[in-house]
Amino acid sequence: MKFAVLGGGSWATAIVKMLTENQDQVIWYMRNEDAITHIKTEKHNPNYLSSVEFHLEQLHLTSDINEAVSNADLLIFAIPSAFLDIELQKLTVSLENKIVFSAIKGIVPETGLIVGEHFHEKYAIPFENIGVITGPCHAEEVALERLSYLTIACADQEKATIVAENLKSHYIKTKISDDIIGTEYAAMLKNIYAIAAGISHGLGYGDNFQSVLMSNSIREMKRFIKRVHKMKRNINNSAYLGDLLVTGYSTFSRNRMFGNMIGKGYTVKSAMMEMSMVAEGYYATKSAHLLMQKINKESGTPIIDAVYEVLYKGRNPKKIFTALTDKLD
Amino acid sequence: MKFAVLGGGSWATAIVKMLTENQDQVIWYMRNEDAITHIKTEKHNPNYLSSVEFHLEQLHLTSDINEAVSNADLLIFAIPSAFLDIELQKLTVSLENKIVFSAIKGIVPETGLIVGEHFHEKYAIPFENIGVITGPCHAEEVALERLSYLTIACADQEKATIVAENLKSHYIKTKISDDIIGTEYAAMLKNIYAIAAGISHGLGYGDNFQSVLMSNSIREMKRFIKRVHKMKRNINNSAYLGDLLVTGYSTFSRNRMFGNMIGKGYTVKSAMMEMSMVAEGYYATKSAHLLMQKINKESGTPIIDAVYEVLYKGRNPKKIFTALTDKLD
Repeated sequence: MKFAVLGGGSWATAIVKMLTENQDQVIWYMRNEDAITHIKTEKHNPNYLSSVEFHLEQLHLTSDINEAVSNADLLIFAIPSAFLDIELQKLTVSLENKIVFSAIKGIVPETGLIVGEHFHEKYAIPFENIGVITGPCHAEEVALERLSYLTIACADQEKATIVAENLKSHYIKTKISDDIIGTEYAAMLKNIYAIAAGISHGLGYGDNFQSVLMSNSIREMKRFIKRVHKMKRNINNSAYLGDLLVTGYSTFSRNRMFGNMIGKGYTVKSAMMEMSMVAEGYYATKSAHLLMQKINKESGTPIIDAVYEVLYKGRNPKKIFTALTDKLD
Repeated sequence: MKFAVLGGGSWATAIVKMLTENQDQVIWYMRNEDAITHIKTEKHNPNYLSSVEFHLEQLHLTSDINEAVSNADLLIFAIPSAFLDIELQKLTVSLENKIVFSAIKGIVPETGLIVGEHFHEKYAIPFENIGVITGPCHAEEVALERLSYLTIACADQEKATIVAENLKSHYIKTKISDDIIGTEYAAMLKNIYAIAAGISHGLGYGDNFQSVLMSNSIREMKRFIKRVHKMKRNINNSAYLGDLLVTGYSTFSRNRMFGNMIGKGYTVKSAMMEMSMVAEGYYATKSAHLLMQKINKESGTPIIDAVYEVLYKGRNPKKIFTALTDKLD
């Protein structure tokens, strides 16, 4: 089974590193030709996780997405969700018979779908060929070879096992799951809760409140995912609660940082400009809000609602969060 | 209803502050007469939360525990569990007809019981007169009037409500619960998990692992408490998960600090000496271990077991935690 990783960012780089622990060669697609040239001479990605040194004979680097896809059996997408659709439009070769795993945490803005659903709906890929790779896992700690745990979800447990076996190493432990919908939604929702954590921190709330917010967030996440896709799952498993915690408690999370600026008084627009990028939770907030509206008027998601009011309705974060504190317990 | 707070530490001081927001006068017992003299002249506790200024007419200060108890209807104990028994031995007045609330997080070393059970077994106080005050709540943030949430548990919901009403204010929200056993065990167990978090941090594990450890800790806590006292409870409520997180993620937690020193190579004895005090989780580890042994040979508590092996069997933390990582997921 030949693996291709699509993306040039830190998470893509970390996944290539993990795969090269097990595979003789990994196909690695990225748009940026300068970065490819740099890797070919300097043996590391110039922009992300540059401490990670690769063996060049283990990499099949290409800036041609069709070359990558046509040579691979199993594709791991690690492109920011906002750019996924643009990249997929470059495809001239078919995705039929390819196994597609998503390592993307977010919603495809063009369709409002999580990545697995996007591949299923727009590319007619059957669910048994779609999988999800989820943390809790900061790429930076993979670079440092600090012990991390991944959950690999696929309706077809054999395919999940293949990916799990190829990612694991002395610093990566893997487990498999059949909950692709739930793990993907968890990975997306956690970014909204990280924005909420950031906003409350920016407003001056302390650690006591933060822990109450996280305790309410996991209960809200459970309700949300249950409404979208009801099945037996333990929301306290690492793929859900662990992933929420590593993001919500990380001061390096872009989503938390974005929220923090909003809490400190930046407008949404100026916070985005200051960060020179859009936090994934920004799109996720809108999608989650719309989805809950579609399913049920009485949403039961006060935290998502509060973040939505602040980000999309221009409401005063202090007022909105003061009202939110009465809905938490 | 007349309230007495027993204890002179930071949590006792925070509780007195909360009560004075609602009560005309609070009885406050502490051993340290110098501290009482200081409060009477300087209006603040010299040793803990010294930024909190009291109105002297609201305090009935005494270093005589019998004076405090005989004048009060409702007693809130906030004495370190290691000293509770010594203090109670000073009692000449009866605890009969007193309502006793515990704000103590730990096990009474002399009996190996949680505080509520200790009062019930040794002082024949009926369970409907016993309650628990639990966080997530660092006392330091109460001093700063940062919004915090407390859970007040008592079998008698009316008494829980009275205490909840008297603790709440513009910076304290309260909720009531009937799970005195579960909330007390949670408050005790969280200190063990904070030691585990500290040990792993000291050993060099990162944030990814920490989130996996916390995700496994809450599942282990759920199993533990269910075995001790089975009832319907949502382990993700603030009193359980929130309390775990505020302790496990706090770099100021004494228990986490203690664990961190062990992880960095200090012996248990030298870590204790260095901290010039005993972390509550140290006793809790032994009690929890013994209790699980009594209930079931197959404990299902690998984290507590690992901490026990390190603290009480002198086992190498690196080896024990390497073995532990294989039991987590």
